[in-house]
This record gives sequence, C-alpha cells and structure tokens, in this order.
Amino acid sequence: MEIKSDILVIGSGPAGLISASTARRYYPSKKIAVITKTDLSIIPCGIPYMFSSLSSPDDNLCAVEGLKKKGTDIYIDEIKQVLPDKKEAVGENTYSYEKLVLATGSKPLRPPIKGIDKEGVFFVYKEMHYLKNMIEQLKSWRNVLIIGGGFIGVELADELSKHKHLHIFLVEAQEEVLSNSFDKEFSLLARDKLVSEGVEIITGDVVSEIAGGKKAEQVRLQSGRTLDVDAVIVGIGAVPNTELAEKAGIDLGRGKGIWVDEYMRTSVKDIFAVGDCAGKRDFFTRRDCRVMLASTATAEARVAGANLYQLKIVRENKGTIAIFSTYVNGLVLGSAGLTEKTAKQEGFDVVVGQAEGVDRHPASLPGASKIKVKLIFSRHSGIILGGQVSGGASCGELINIIGLAIQKRVSFSELETFQMATHPYLTSAPTMYSLVLAAQNAGDNF
Amino acid sequence: MEIKSDILVIGSGPAGLISASTARRYYPSKKIAVITKTDLSIIPCGIPYMFSSLSSPDDNLCAVEGLKKKGTDIYIDEIKQVLPDKKEAVGENTYSYEKLVLATGSKPLRPPIKGIDKEGVFFVYKEMHYLKNMIEQLKSWRNVLIIGGGFIGVELADELSKHKHLHIFLVEAQEEVLSNSFDKEFSLLARDKLVSEGVEIITGDVVSEIAGGKKAEQVRLQSGRTLDVDAVIVGIGAVPNTELAEKAGIDLGRGKGIWVDEYMRTSVKDIFAVGDCAGKRDFFTRRDCRVMLASTATAEARVAGANLYQLKIVRENKGTIAIFSTYVNGLVLGSAGLTEKTAKQEGFDVVVGQAEGVDRHPASLPGASKIKVKLIFSRHSGIILGGQVSGGASCGELINIIGLAIQKRVSFSELETFQMATHPYLTSAPTMYSLVLAAQNAGDNF
Repeated sequence: MEIKSDILVIGSGPAGLISASTARRYYPSKKIAVITKTDLSIIPCGIPYMFSSLSSPDDNLCAVEGLKKKGTDIYIDEIKQVLPDKKEAVGENTYSYEKLVLATGSKPLRPPIKGIDKEGVFFVYKEMHYLKNMIEQLKSWRNVLIIGGGFIGVELADELSKHKHLHIFLVEAQEEVLSNSFDKEFSLLARDKLVSEGVEIITGDVVSEIAGGKKAEQVRLQSGRTLDVDAVIVGIGAVPNTELAEKAGIDLGRGKGIWVDEYMRTSVKDIFAVGDCAGKRDFFTRRDCRVMLASTATAEARVAGANLYQLKIVRENKGTIAIFSTYVNGLVLGSAGLTEKTAKQEGFDVVVGQAEGVDRHPASLPGASKIKVKLIFSRHSGIILGGQVSGGASCGELINIIGLAIQKRVSFSELETFQMATHPYLTSAPTMYSLVLAAQNAGDNF
Repeated sequence: MEIKSDILVIGSGPAGLISASTARRYYPSKKIAVITKTDLSIIPCGIPYMFSSLSSPDDNLCAVEGLKKKGTDIYIDEIKQVLPDKKEAVGENTYSYEKLVLATGSKPLRPPIKGIDKEGVFFVYKEMHYLKNMIEQLKSWRNVLIIGGGFIGVELADELSKHKHLHIFLVEAQEEVLSNSFDKEFSLLARDKLVSEGVEIITGDVVSEIAGGKKAEQVRLQSGRTLDVDAVIVGIGAVPNTELAEKAGIDLGRGKGIWVDEYMRTSVKDIFAVGDCAGKRDFFTRRDCRVMLASTATAEARVAGANLYQLKIVRENKGTIAIFSTYVNGLVLGSAGLTEKTAKQEGFDVVVGQAEGVDRHPASLPGASKIKVKLIFSRHSGIILGGQVSGGASCGELINIIGLAIQKRVSFSELETFQMATHPYLTSAPTMYSLVLAAQNAGDNF
C-alpha cells in the first residue's frame, strides 16, 4: 500500500513520540505518521521497575493514544529501506514524506564473551514480550548474575533483590559501580546500599566465559572465580541503530551515531535523526560521546519537531550534558556534567566544593535524609563543570538545579548568593542549603 | 565592660549567623563578635512546626555552637545605641568595631484592631519562651482564630488542625489565601486542603474587634459575623526593626527598611545591614518590596560577610525574587518571581504556559503525586518572569529550578529544550516533564 505523509517518524520510543507531538504543535496542518514495530511501546527508564515495584509490567506501557487523538497516524510496520531520492520509506507499505525523522533507537551491546548465546542469557531489550518472559522465568531462578554496574545493572540488582529467593551477583569491570557518572565517594554509597540488600558485588573483574550445556550454568571470571548461575543479565550499554541510515547513504559521526547538526539535521536533506540513534557531542568539549538517555532524546526531539520546515527553536544547549539520577532502595544519586575524575581527564584545572546536610530543618522532622553535594568548577573561569548529589527524594530535582546551572554556565559566586526557596518539610535550612555551601566551600579553594 | 572586636554583628537570626560565619571564612584573622538578646535562637521557618510536627519545641533551636567553635564570640546583650563616630555599639557592655553588621530582624505587624491587647491574642514572635507558652496553653483552647492567610497563617492552621480538640478559623482580607504569592488556581488547592482538615476559612473579610473582658472571648468581623474564640493568633506580616539604625542616623529606604546598596552597605560608612531589617528591591522592577524570608536573608548575609573589607562577591542577582515554598498536609506549593496577576499589575504583557503531570513514571509507582506547573513569560522578550508549582515533595526543589531560571533570565525556548534528569521514582517522564511542557505550552501562545 502507498501511504502519503508530510512528516514521517520512524520509531515510537520517547524520541519518536516527542518528535511527532512537537511537529503536530508547530505544523498543525501537516499529515504526520509514526511507524512502530510494535504497538507495545514501553517507557525505557521504567524497565528495571517492571521486575518488582510495578504491580504489572503492563503499567510500563507508553500511551500513544494521545498522538492518535491529535490526528497523528500510527502504523505498525518495519521499515527496511529509506530512499532519499524518492523521499520514501519502504516496509510492508511504502510511505512518502516531505520530512523524515529517524528515531530508530539503540540495541543492547553484545560483548564477545564465549557462551553469550546460551539460553538463560538476557539483554535489556525494550520489548514488552521479551521482558515479560524474563519476569515470568525469574520465579524459577536462584542465582542471577548481572554483567555491568552502570545505571541499568544497579537498578536491576536493587529491584531483583526484592525477590527474596534470588541471590544476585553484580560484576563490573571498573573499580566501582556507576563510575562513569560518579566519583568514588558517591559510587560507594550505592555499593553499600546494594550490599545491605544482599547483592554480591564484584568489581575490577570481567566475565570471561559463560559455561554450561544449552543453558547458562556457570560464569567464569577473569580472576579465575567460577559462579553457579541460573541466569545472566547483560547491561553494559547500547549501540545506536544506524543500519537504515547507513543504507540510505546518511553519514555517521565519529561516535558511530548518525551525524546531526545543532538542529538534528542529518547529512541528507530533509532527514533528521533524534534520540539514541543520533550522535551526541559533549557539552564541554564537543567531542563525540555516547550518552543515551530518554531525557536527552526528548530534548533533541523537541528541537527536531520544531525545526522541520523552518528553524524555530534555537538550540541553546550546545551539546549533551550527561545528567542522570538513580534510586537504590531509597537512596537517590544524581550526577550532571563532568565528574571530578572526568574533568581532570579532559584537562581542566578543577576546584571542588562539597557540603553535607539534611533535607529537612530542623533535622528531627519526619522523613529527613542526609544529603551530600559535590560541585566541580573550572579554576580559571570559575564556571561550574559538574555536580553530584546523594540523599532522599529531593535529590531528584536538586540535580536538575545543577543541570540548569551547567547549561547556563553559572559561576561559583553566583551559586554562593543563589536565592532559593527553603521549607522545613522540603529542604535544608537556608543557612545550610547544601548547594550554596558547596559553592562557598569551593570558593575557599580558588 | 569594654569589648573590642573587628567585626561586630548585632542579631543572631539566620542573617546574623551567616554574616558571622561568612566573615570568618573570608577574614580568618579578624576578631568577630555576635550580640544576641537570647541564647535561644530559633529557626524562623520552623516555627509553625513547633506546634505539632516536632516532638519538642526545643528541636527548633538554632545551634550557635558551630560559630563559637570557629572562634566567634557570642555575647548575650541588648544594644541600645550605635555610635558611628566612635565606632561603638552600646548595651550592658560597650563593643568597639571596625565593621558593623546590623541583623536586627523584624517584628510582627500589630494591626490597630480594637481589643488587640487582650490576653489570649498572640503574635508570632521568634522567641522560644513566648512560643513555648503558646504551645502550653493550646491544650486548654477550643476555638482558635488566625488572622492572616499568608504562609504563616496557612502553615499554622495546618499544624494546629492536627490537634483534634481545636476548631480553627482562618480570616484573610483578600479574596483567597496565599494570594500575594499565588494565582487563584493554586491558592484554591491550599484552601481545599485546609478545609478537608476541618479549618474554617473566611476570606474577603477582616476582624473589626476582639471583644471580651480581660481575655479575648469573641471576634467580630466587618461582615457582622461574631465568632466565639479562646485564642487569636495574628500572622499578617512583619515590620523591619530599624530603631537602632534610625537613632544612629542611618537612612531608611522607601520601603522603610534600612537602605542598602548592592553590597549591603548602609548610608553610613562601615555599617552593613542584612536580612529582615534591610530594605529589599524587587528583581524585576527595582521597586522597594517587603519580602522577608530567611533564604533571602542568608543570601544577603553571604554578600555582606564576604564584602566587609574588600568587595569580593559580585552580587549577580540584582534584587530580590520572591521565592517560597509551603506545605499543607502533604500538598506542596511553590512560587518564584511574579505571579500572573502581579506581572500584569506591573505592566508586563505576559504569556502563560501550564502543564499537569505526575511526579513518577509510570504513575502507578508508589508515592506518586499530581504535579502542576505554571510559568509566566514576558511576551516581548520571551524571558521568564515567574512560576508556580503544586504537587508532592519534589516541588520543594522544582521551584528552585524555576528560581535559578529567573535569576539567569532564561527564555521559554531555553526551557523547552532543557536537559534534565528524570527517573521513574523521582520525576515525571522525560516526555511529560512539566516544566518543559509548560514552557512549550507558553510557546504556543507567543
């Protein structure tokens, strides 16, 4: 069947959905179509919570109904080829377009480990049926080994540990968990929390082989240790889905994502790319980087959706700040921008300020959590490079204050005199507001 | 006794304490003294919570021990006179200074209502003995009437309503509670919460007389209504304590606070003023305003403390943004900058954007609260003028993101592509992040 559209979006993850909804907002008269492989789109960041916190995995479905109501067509199809000359995308149907948005996402990285193809080895696919199958099977597991101590590995370990029949191993090659996003003192907080839940953490070691018959039965580590397992879950990152783009003659960037300019335009006229499939550049260095986050994806999708026919939104943030938060059994950790370690690696002369406090005042109010803030500044300019927080739920938005400060290139002295709302039940005391104290403590070191 | 100091601070509220601790940090070799009327300094914003949430009122004491440890002297004394020519402050002792910081605070506004001096009429003094006496007496009360539906009145009503033997009336002259800081739709959320706790709210009416014998027994309203009461609590604002400054020949500003420049210097050489006693200017209009908040006070104290001997911190925020949050039985309300109403009154052509969402994703995760964000922009420049939020605990820091956006004069289009951290347990979904959606919705109206 031939289907005519003005704006065609391939992919229905956060990047695809927001591209379509933003396009609808800016170009109300255009015919918009979204092509998805499955009508069961899921919320990527919610995946770990399908394993215990959510009463049903189906709660993690992403509603596409809103789009349909606003007149966007949704087609379940798999595009095999994009033909830029004819302005067509070809799957079961052939779709014509004026503007095409590639939001093809990423797929889990598959490390070349012997035995990786055995039964019982799982990857964190963003697919409902696959995940439901895992959740069904975990009742029969006893020993689970997670490869990768990044966000996915840590959050999965936390969730799986709530199933009391499971023993969980977490194997991370680097010295600490979460070490791409946190300096060691914050990573240790996550480690302690997981250990207290019974998770067995093995750092500085890698899986050299998954052994067994048809099924995974043992995991051998480089250190020589062998562990009995019923299941292995691999969560070591993802690679952009760029096959469609490559076949269409679209350039990739140096980081192997689809090359895009500030407005998410690819090297081929009228084709945009957003989200995990698109290349990212670091906010500070403009170097290609591999931050794959739904929040970054949606920010890019808003830029693309607005600028399809005419440049409208000026993309103020020139690059991607790595901004994350995670939750480990009540402990919240957030990171934005560069860590002390990565800032030094990049060549910054850094000044660090830290502060600890409590997120209530007085601290005897119910629900109080300890809070810890670390800020990293450039010595030469005084501008903030990054920050990390740990504490209770308030840290989920506290890290976004730091994120905005980075995006607006705020100096330590501006943060020292930052005017903030404080409230006994919600924040530190105004005299002890950790963000301000950390900036002030940094000030002492300039 | 004659006491020699280099830096003398009069007052031990948040402004005084932070002036002293900041001065200690920047001028380690100086002799610093703080003069306080009482060694029982209390946390001002914690006062409402002394009435129920805190297990003991003493939990709301502000520790001055930290200052002492760092070598600052604390004197319990009441200064009667400042002599700028001799560089002395005179109380029981006489204190000499090189630099003087006035942090004399404010006192509750005492409206000229007939009967206001009767027993059983209370003001929200920042004094431990006075407040403890109130807390002791409330056991014998039944009907309590609060005059004033601002933050103090609303928070006190919420706390007192937890004492099930009390019936609480809240009388507010304006059309709605909290209407200096919130547009009506947000004020109504607070009203509904209080009403559900049994608080009887009377708006658009004022107390014309407090009747009874020696003790307050009835309150008569302008509308003609008469209410039986056992106690009346007045919380209608505060006036700066400027007597000492006036006697010393220091100028007041047009708003009746002590006039100060950008570095908190008064009109008299080597004398600074900070906190409630110091005049404030509005961030947008530079008009004198009467925002009295501990958070503003501490920001000012940091500026003064650093700049006593040499200008060091450039005060980047040119004026005071009114930034508040409050908590009504689990409902959090936050406001920063101008409301839609005040922005229009000031003469701005405004563009408003609103969004509603949930602070978890998926929304079925435990602990989810509805969240509502309203942003106000200037039509001409696209710059943010203010914002209001309501929801759960995350709004305590969410309002501070808006506060930083105001202080950095962020545009709606920057907020549209704001890169934020999102997490299932902590925030809205990246596709539905309310701050971004509200900016986007505003964008539609430009």
